[in-house]
Amino acid sequence: MLIVLGLETPRLDVDNIINKIEKLGCTPHEIPGVSKLAIGITGPTDTLNEEDFNLMPSVQEVVRITKKYKLVSRQMKFDDTLINVGENVIGGKELFICAGPCSVESRDQIFEIAGILKELGIKYLRAGAYKPRSSPYAFQGLKEKGLEYLDEVKKVFGLKIVTEVLNSVSLPAVAEVADILQIGARNMQNYSLIVEAGQYQKPILLKRGMSATVEDLLLSAEYILAQNNYNVILCERGIRTFETSTRNTLDLNAVPVIKKNSHLPIIVDPSHGVGIWDKVPAMAMASIAAGADGLILEVHHKPSEALSDGYQSLTPEQFKLLLNKLKELAPVVGREIKL
Amino acid sequence: MLIVLGLETPRLDVDNIINKIEKLGCTPHEIPGVSKLAIGITGPTDTLNEEDFNLMPSVQEVVRITKKYKLVSRQMKFDDTLINVGENVIGGKELFICAGPCSVESRDQIFEIAGILKELGIKYLRAGAYKPRSSPYAFQGLKEKGLEYLDEVKKVFGLKIVTEVLNSVSLPAVAEVADILQIGARNMQNYSLIVEAGQYQKPILLKRGMSATVEDLLLSAEYILAQNNYNVILCERGIRTFETSTRNTLDLNAVPVIKKNSHLPIIVDPSHGVGIWDKVPAMAMASIAAGADGLILEVHHKPSEALSDGYQSLTPEQFKLLLNKLKELAPVVGREIKL
Amino acid sequence: MLIVLGLETPRLDVDNIINKIEKLGCTPHEIPGVSKLAIGITGPTDTLNEEDFNLMPSVQEVVRITKKYKLVSRQMKFDDTLINVGENVIGGKELFICAGPCSVESRDQIFEIAGILKELGIKYLRAGAYKPRSSPYAFQGLKEKGLEYLDEVKKVFGLKIVTEVLNSVSLPAVAEVADILQIGARNMQNYSLIVEAGQYQKPILLKRGMSATVEDLLLSAEYILAQNNYNVILCERGIRTFETSTRNTLDLNAVPVIKKNSHLPIIVDPSHGVGIWDKVPAMAMASIAAGADGLILEVHHKPSEALSDGYQSLTPEQFKLLLNKLKELAPVVGREIKL
Amino acid sequence: MLIVLGLETPRLDVDNIINKIEKLGCTPHEIPGVSKLAIGITGPTDTLNEEDFNLMPSVQEVVRITKKYKLVSRQMKFDDTLINVGENVIGGKELFICAGPCSVESRDQIFEIAGILKELGIKYLRAGAYKPRSSPYAFQGLKEKGLEYLDEVKKVFGLKIVTEVLNSVSLPAVAEVADILQIGARNMQNYSLIVEAGQYQKPILLKRGMSATVEDLLLSAEYILAQNNYNVILCERGIRTFETSTRNTLDLNAVPVIKKNSHLPIIVDPSHGVGIWDKVPAMAMASIAAGADGLILEVHHKPSEALSDGYQSLTPEQFKLLLNKLKELAPVVGREIKL
Repeated sequence: MLIVLGLETPRLDVDNIINKIEKLGCTPHEIPGVSKLAIGITGPTDTLNEEDFNLMPSVQEVVRITKKYKLVSRQMKFDDTLINVGENVIGGKELFICAGPCSVESRDQIFEIAGILKELGIKYLRAGAYKPRSSPYAFQGLKEKGLEYLDEVKKVFGLKIVTEVLNSVSLPAVAEVADILQIGARNMQNYSLIVEAGQYQKPILLKRGMSATVEDLLLSAEYILAQNNYNVILCERGIRTFETSTRNTLDLNAVPVIKKNSHLPIIVDPSHGVGIWDKVPAMAMASIAAGADGLILEVHHKPSEALSDGYQSLTPEQFKLLLNKLKELAPVVGREIKL
Repeated sequence: MLIVLGLETPRLDVDNIINKIEKLGCTPHEIPGVSKLAIGITGPTDTLNEEDFNLMPSVQEVVRITKKYKLVSRQMKFDDTLINVGENVIGGKELFICAGPCSVESRDQIFEIAGILKELGIKYLRAGAYKPRSSPYAFQGLKEKGLEYLDEVKKVFGLKIVTEVLNSVSLPAVAEVADILQIGARNMQNYSLIVEAGQYQKPILLKRGMSATVEDLLLSAEYILAQNNYNVILCERGIRTFETSTRNTLDLNAVPVIKKNSHLPIIVDPSHGVGIWDKVPAMAMASIAAGADGLILEVHHKPSEALSDGYQSLTPEQFKLLLNKLKELAPVVGREIKL
Repeated sequence: MLIVLGLETPRLDVDNIINKIEKLGCTPHEIPGVSKLAIGITGPTDTLNEEDFNLMPSVQEVVRITKKYKLVSRQMKFDDTLINVGENVIGGKELFICAGPCSVESRDQIFEIAGILKELGIKYLRAGAYKPRSSPYAFQGLKEKGLEYLDEVKKVFGLKIVTEVLNSVSLPAVAEVADILQIGARNMQNYSLIVEAGQYQKPILLKRGMSATVEDLLLSAEYILAQNNYNVILCERGIRTFETSTRNTLDLNAVPVIKKNSHLPIIVDPSHGVGIWDKVPAMAMASIAAGADGLILEVHHKPSEALSDGYQSLTPEQFKLLLNKLKELAPVVGREIKL
Repeated sequence: MLIVLGLETPRLDVDNIINKIEKLGCTPHEIPGVSKLAIGITGPTDTLNEEDFNLMPSVQEVVRITKKYKLVSRQMKFDDTLINVGENVIGGKELFICAGPCSVESRDQIFEIAGILKELGIKYLRAGAYKPRSSPYAFQGLKEKGLEYLDEVKKVFGLKIVTEVLNSVSLPAVAEVADILQIGARNMQNYSLIVEAGQYQKPILLKRGMSATVEDLLLSAEYILAQNNYNVILCERGIRTFETSTRNTLDLNAVPVIKKNSHLPIIVDPSHGVGIWDKVPAMAMASIAAGADGLILEVHHKPSEALSDGYQSLTPEQFKLLLNKLKELAPVVGREIKL
């Protein structure tokens, strides 16, 4: 349920409403908007009555939220959510472009790639220190050592770090280095981890699970917002279907669906989505044309020697060509790329 | 197998090669290209030997085609296939834009919509006279009457007609009116119909089946090319997955995959692909950004009164807005829209 | 809509109801049951009123059918449909067991296999004369010659023939030989063919399409029943999913779902369903345990030399072992196998 | 890689081989079988040479394991793995039958159901104290309180407890009560949790993820075996497909596929697999007929009042009827049910 108030509502009225919600056993969430102030209510709202609030001072409207997800829905919060990462903003006019290798492989490798990306004007570096792998015998990442290198790179180049957290044991260490904490597709429904990660109040990049519906993804995000961390970036990265000509089926339809139903930013990972480097530029362009707020892309200076996912990585040259095309495309859909 | 010759090869040499292929029990296909002449070979090519042809006069190269599909593959024919429809060309720089209602509902309706589209500069009208419907009790189209109205519209407005053929009984009548014969998703593996339709030597718009892989689609197209009709336009229109927030999952990944593996034009039908009108413009833009050669879109002047698929139809106003955005987008991907 | 009458209703009353239905622009279907007579109504039933019939003589009840499919639903006809094929009955206590090669490959081959099956007491022989193949270059069946051999085998061994019809051109010839006309998965939504085949009033074996929901399958069957041919045998044969360890995902859940929602018999094809011979016996057993009315199985005397689908065929020895297990299983689920 | 030795091999020879493997940087795993002793090797086996071991004393054979999974494969260990739970054995002739409510809802509820199951001779009780739910607002289980009740029930009725663990924080408490630790479908690729749970050396019930292939499931199990805990019970519980008439698509094909490729027991959860109680008995029967080693079923004394998943729960009466049918079925597939 949602209580809509004017922006200029006296604090006393707001507090009265909040107190009443709590007395009725529910949880209030203040949601400031551009033209309205809203108070979202979660919990056992079935027991609430519109009339309980309708006649209270300053209340303009009381709205039932019909979706299963509440705080992430656009019914609850009409304005797009903007997420600040240092001086940068995600979800606004400027597109979010994040690039880097699948994993940190060595100090040299990550410095090499970070240097190239910095040169290109990129602000966000992606690279995994901890890698979830289907096989226990596959390369699992450099772990603590990888975090150390990321921290160095961050200081040397001033890049914002986007890196995945796999479990609660390593969460504090990852959170110290990461500017954006990534929850991978395999952990999208690992609610314990999501909730713990969300408590750091850092932006969370939440990847859609391979068999998750858009609704499932939004419900997972709801777990984070329900703890009053609104800094969630959703990420489409391909779903599992019968088609075998691509690694996954990148589901760009999710972009307009999410834009309609939620105020959260949605970005796309075409590298994992199609899984073959030569189709990545086409799908990166398509993502932005579909309305995505940004891209996360795998870039490696020597893809054929990468320890993981080399076949889906762009070389710096290919990435540069793509960036140029994206810069032309952005204004067509009312966006911009600042490099 | 593919025999590559120079463009200036004497006819006698070509004929000798063709004769030899036929003597060996296979079928030759002459494939003229921009810089080379090729002779594709289908049939029991396992029994052929590269050496049988390598030393023949004018032969520059003999290539084994590794894909299951042969004539549709880019290995067999490197240059993009251009399809002429009257004075228009599909598959070249100009994007193919086809619009119209799901079905012909009345003389008034189709004249109304055709007039609007003509006004907008659209060259291709889509509308079904025969409709395949899951339920025998749903509206099945105006049939012969619908064809009659399409024929009138064609003459009055000079629009090219794209319409679906459902079976061999009505094929001759449909082929008389249609400039492009559409094979629907449900009939993509109805090989008898495909082969018969292909014999008319008219362009065939072949829609991907709901559970067809890209390879399946290309193999179906191969049935048509194998009869020496190269005028096939492939169409992505959504596949079946677990996701329920869209009617189908429009698989734009198919666009770069097909562009790499085949020389045939590939267009996209976002109306059926997502099935909800307000997501159609985003996915139409994404289709062109992904490299598609065109779009087929449902446009209806009164969507809420449409006898079929109204919820996925754009109004003329929405369509016009989309066209304007597409015109801005086209040059970014090296294309143009002429209206 | 469904009008329920007593079994002993005077003919005059029945005719009055039928006349009224027709006058109201709908189509009546007399459906005799074990304890009741029912008159199903299809067409624009939205315009009908329960009261129009409620007070007519002999009418016991008027029921709205809520499913999209009508005549195939168990709401419309409560008793299981029994289908007679000569002296045999499909859908009753006795399980339907149909076996044979994927395709007729030669006179010798089909006589060899038919002889073995006859020896084992099998009553139904399956074998394709016309084969739908993804590739135009794959073996497409012996066609007319194949039908000829099937006709001989039928006369010599007295086996009932189950064979696929691919198009309307060959339908008359196929219908002359077939005791049961098979519509393959790829043609499940080729409504023109289904309707034409249904008009022969022979039993139709309707295979579920690779991406068809159970509802889609029942709606396709509805096309046949709507022409007053109730002799439809549904067949589950695997759907397309992301799983690659089996050729298709045999969806046995469809068996109890269909048993609940329809009165039509449902059989299973585990050979196509899993696509690897050594998993076929387990899934054949599972099919019967799930409540299926029978099985259609690929059996070949020399699987490794089969022209199509050899890897999913059982040898006669393997088939015999399976039959013995099935005979033990049948009484556990209230069925029997008579050989 | 696998080194095969005779059962009577002198310890010295075994130790020599183990030392050599370790010296070469790999990990040895002793796998005792019925007629042979095997030493599995995992790690960087690409660097190993068959000849390194072929000539060592007592070595009978050296085998390359071609599957991505090693220790779980039947190539590595031919005999079925038997798992002891107190005096009971899982994976042998006796079928594993585990029943109970989706979640512990109250002390009364779990005592009521446990009493009924005990009465029926059931040995394993399933019930969740911690429930993973798509929505943060849905009932998440009684948590510690739930574990407490389960512990009481265990002592009072002597039932073995099967319950899910959701995260590492609650793992120690859950492991204290559980006789079998359940890893749910959403956590199948939460490798951190799997590895930690595996270290308790208790049997692990590992449920297949909704979009996991059979290979993915076996690779997840490999994580546990790689730590020398061989007590893993695999569980098929339905995958995500386009079909909507069932909650999930229970993929029974996984049973014979896993039986062929792995030595681990595989059971089926038809309650979650189909998600509608009236289809559960048919699919339970089908599971056993397909060769499954057991079943895990939801049983609730008042399904309509259940706090979660009531629509897929059997009543005690329905469960009793099913048990009787299963008892008849078991001997047909060489199994037995002891109650």
